[in-house]
Amino acid sequence: MANRSCVIRLSRYKNALNRLKALNFVRVFSDNLADAAGVTAAQVRKDFSLFGITGNRRGGYKVDELSDQLNKILGKDQLQEVVVIGMGNIGRALLHYGGLEKSGIKIVAGFDIDPAKFDREGQPPVLPLEDLVSVVTERQVALGVLAVPEYAAQQVSELMLSAGVRGILNFAPICLKAPEGCVVNNINLESELENLIYFVNAANNEK
Amino acid sequence: MANRSCVIRLSRYKNALNRLKALNFVRVFSDNLADAAGVTAAQVRKDFSLFGITGNRRGGYKVDELSDQLNKILGKDQLQEVVVIGMGNIGRALLHYGGLEKSGIKIVAGFDIDPAKFDREGQPPVLPLEDLVSVVTERQVALGVLAVPEYAAQQVSELMLSAGVRGILNFAPICLKAPEGCVVNNINLESELENLIYFVNAANNEK
Repeated sequence: MANRSCVIRLSRYKNALNRLKALNFVRVFSDNLADAAGVTAAQVRKDFSLFGITGNRRGGYKVDELSDQLNKILGKDQLQEVVVIGMGNIGRALLHYGGLEKSGIKIVAGFDIDPAKFDREGQPPVLPLEDLVSVVTERQVALGVLAVPEYAAQQVSELMLSAGVRGILNFAPICLKAPEGCVVNNINLESELENLIYFVNAANNEK
Repeated sequence: MANRSCVIRLSRYKNALNRLKALNFVRVFSDNLADAAGVTAAQVRKDFSLFGITGNRRGGYKVDELSDQLNKILGKDQLQEVVVIGMGNIGRALLHYGGLEKSGIKIVAGFDIDPAKFDREGQPPVLPLEDLVSVVTERQVALGVLAVPEYAAQQVSELMLSAGVRGILNFAPICLKAPEGCVVNNINLESELENLIYFVNAANNEK
């Protein structure tokens, strides 16, 4: 079973392949993908071997074939619909985040409890939180982005799960617990900045 | 040397400690922190031992002491200033992201090349990109958030580094290369969603 870091790398390889495709590349070598993803060529080959993807030393990988294989692994062979809960600064930014559609991800609606934020005619629309269950159930949306304040996060995540959401990308500054059969990835801006601070200081101290 | 995942966990322990402090807890056990951070107690102890932090089996850790130690490791014993480059949806949201000040992180200014976005009187102000070098140099800002379009990311990151920024949190959908002496953490929304899709599908297939 692949771990989180491995799957993040697969995304990077896939993105690099898309760029190479646009440049009419037909073949690609693990060294090329390693450069694009900032890892070693051995890591690329190891990641691929986990999924039974093999190239050959002289010919490398065929761009089209490899791209199809990675897209399939990453679930990009079908449109993925996503809802965004919480229309604060981050939630609104994510609702209108460009460039996802071309990669097969569609944000279908935003949700909030504040009537001032509702916008039924918007693209995507912003709807009352009460409508979440019906929208998710009807459209069989499996993914949700959670961008509500900390105090509301656990409760809203349970509502999302009860509606049928199976994967949550959580931007609320709290480490959500994933119940059985559900995946939660936490992105905490404060932690990310702290992480950066730590490594910047560590680099300074090495001098 | 701690790795990225370890430092992210330290942030989580630190956040959990802040909550416990607010509840007037004096002592805490590795099991408590494990629950809060979603890891095992053994992992907590292993992380702490890497930094020479020791508790004792019966008494646990002293909340105040542990909190000070973690804050120091994470560089939170001094104010950290941050600049944000690129005032698109994500950049603007990050510029106004609340809750960082209380944790010792201050966003000092946003930057863009579009005059329509400048706002010198804003809190924080939005300034022309030409001013980046002078602001960063003058205030000795070590950290920057990059939220520009993909095609501009490499060039702007080089400008940031030349100004003296030592750590970049990159939201542009490209995997930036970190030059010597500089740290780059990439957050790619598409990759995060793809990651979620992969694990949701993997969980479904296990059934």
